[in-house]
Amino acid sequence: MAAVNNRQILLASRPRGEPTLDNFRLVEAQVAEPGPQQVLLRTVYLSLDPYMRGRMNAGDSYAKPVEVGQVMEGRSVCEVVKSNVPSYKTGDIVLAETGWQTFSLSDGTQLQKVDAALGPISYALGVLGMPGLTAYTGLLNIGKPQAGETLVVAAASGAVGSLVGQIAKIKGCRTIGIAGGEKKCRFVSGELGFDACLDHRQPDLAKRLQAACPNGIDIYFESVGGAVFDSVLPLCNNFARIPVCGLIAHYNATELPAGPNRVPLVMQNILVKRLTFRGFIVSDFASQLSDFMADMSAWLREGRVKYREDITDGLENAPRELLGLLKGENFGKKIVRVGPEHRV
Amino acid sequence: MAAVNNRQILLASRPRGEPTLDNFRLVEAQVAEPGPQQVLLRTVYLSLDPYMRGRMNAGDSYAKPVEVGQVMEGRSVCEVVKSNVPSYKTGDIVLAETGWQTFSLSDGTQLQKVDAALGPISYALGVLGMPGLTAYTGLLNIGKPQAGETLVVAAASGAVGSLVGQIAKIKGCRTIGIAGGEKKCRFVSGELGFDACLDHRQPDLAKRLQAACPNGIDIYFESVGGAVFDSVLPLCNNFARIPVCGLIAHYNATELPAGPNRVPLVMQNILVKRLTFRGFIVSDFASQLSDFMADMSAWLREGRVKYREDITDGLENAPRELLGLLKGENFGKKIVRVGPEHRV
Repeated sequence: MAAVNNRQILLASRPRGEPTLDNFRLVEAQVAEPGPQQVLLRTVYLSLDPYMRGRMNAGDSYAKPVEVGQVMEGRSVCEVVKSNVPSYKTGDIVLAETGWQTFSLSDGTQLQKVDAALGPISYALGVLGMPGLTAYTGLLNIGKPQAGETLVVAAASGAVGSLVGQIAKIKGCRTIGIAGGEKKCRFVSGELGFDACLDHRQPDLAKRLQAACPNGIDIYFESVGGAVFDSVLPLCNNFARIPVCGLIAHYNATELPAGPNRVPLVMQNILVKRLTFRGFIVSDFASQLSDFMADMSAWLREGRVKYREDITDGLENAPRELLGLLKGENFGKKIVRVGPEHRV
Repeated sequence: MAAVNNRQILLASRPRGEPTLDNFRLVEAQVAEPGPQQVLLRTVYLSLDPYMRGRMNAGDSYAKPVEVGQVMEGRSVCEVVKSNVPSYKTGDIVLAETGWQTFSLSDGTQLQKVDAALGPISYALGVLGMPGLTAYTGLLNIGKPQAGETLVVAAASGAVGSLVGQIAKIKGCRTIGIAGGEKKCRFVSGELGFDACLDHRQPDLAKRLQAACPNGIDIYFESVGGAVFDSVLPLCNNFARIPVCGLIAHYNATELPAGPNRVPLVMQNILVKRLTFRGFIVSDFASQLSDFMADMSAWLREGRVKYREDITDGLENAPRELLGLLKGENFGKKIVRVGPEHRV
């Protein structure tokens, strides 16, 4: 087999503030024949996630940035096209860090086989993958939900938020979601079974949140920041826990918001109510992967966890869809279908 | 015995911002003869502590406020003058929540006997009392010091800070103090054995702190807030722990400081570096009192922990001394000697 035609999306320039389509560039390239210890992968599903916004900036966050001119980073579900690694064979479905491209080479060491018996293979990018593990480990290790407690989670129809709320329900919590728009809220309180879901686009969020949390808030799973956080803080009970897994409201900010400086207020709440704030990223709890897979696949099978995907076709649409994701335009876990599940 | 002449200091009015002497009033009163299940106490040493500023405000913090016209709250070491409670006898030395007054009645249920064999009886208000237990439990339970890590603590010559740093040294940490003025800094890095102590009154604290912490900061024991916190935050390492036990820089604030709003910056640090912020008050760890007493009295005996008191004579000076404490004018644990240890 000769070199394979490949399509890649590169980081063309670093955004200042809100990213635009100009920050990306689609190029055609070639993938060489796989070498002696290499696997050739064809991307089927590419995951789009909020953390990608951070990788577009210069400067280390918890991971190195994508360099300008490099392929955008991302995780995908792939089919093995050709394998020179004994443990993989043509047709295997694997999870890989391929970046935004149609084909890629791997030495096989970072691949995980996807078990199609557990659900659609795209679930490895969501409910049975990184977002699921994020929800599960952040909630259980830091949120420590107890039956009868109240949990609040924003982005409640999204990949992580929808799972946080459903796991909290399984653990016996009163569960309040916050989402953008009536349609998402209906889905969260209806299909997902949250006790309530509030639309942050409507006025008086703080008042409505107070009404929805008559016993205060014991766990706030933070992935948003901004006005939602400001509404949550005064409602926190003594000993409330705040796992911090994202701050999507601030990702495009180029400077700090106007004053006053509310840090002393946050610190006073931490002190007086003995709050715990703890940041985490999913790799901090990688050792809990097998517990997670066992629990989550059982919950899915039993219908106790529901999961919604928002799939767009075509690698070329990934930039537009990431921009939409950062504005909350997705409805469920955002995935780009880069190619068919099975070669035609 | 007839009723005893008593002197009391009342909260005369609530401060707005920095308290003044006008917020206090010294009155003469009488203490009745102790009833059948009562003990008459004579105050020997009254403890002054930063938390008292909070009790002067209206509105619940982690404790109810002192009402205007009430005796100021406070903990003291007392002599039992007369006892109608079988477990106490005249001459016993006890720790009590008497408030700011020379005599008081107690039903005996909230008293603790002070063991004079462990050290000067005033130590029950400091190194062997609430400030010591605060330092010990906050550091060990939340700070979780590991040998080789770097700890920073402000108010490093004070009751809590001096002990936090010395316990951290015992646990093998590099220990950096921050204090106000050259004299305190010399004491902290000299007599107390901290690796360094920085004067926050000199310019460029952030730069000097960075130089003193070449390996970053793993634990910041927060009792101050303000500019010290701002200098610490960028130096925190991944997985750093921040026990929050006080915010003395903000206690007199009547409004939030000017902008920008630095909350997103704090939250971003929490997220990216996976920091843990956790507030606590000493009563949260009351169950660890006996471990604390065993460890701390041994460390004192072995000379591994040193302790400095700043004693002022006369109950009438308590308001002035509390005001001074809130400005960092004390040098060591602030105590008011209300009367002699033994009746003359």
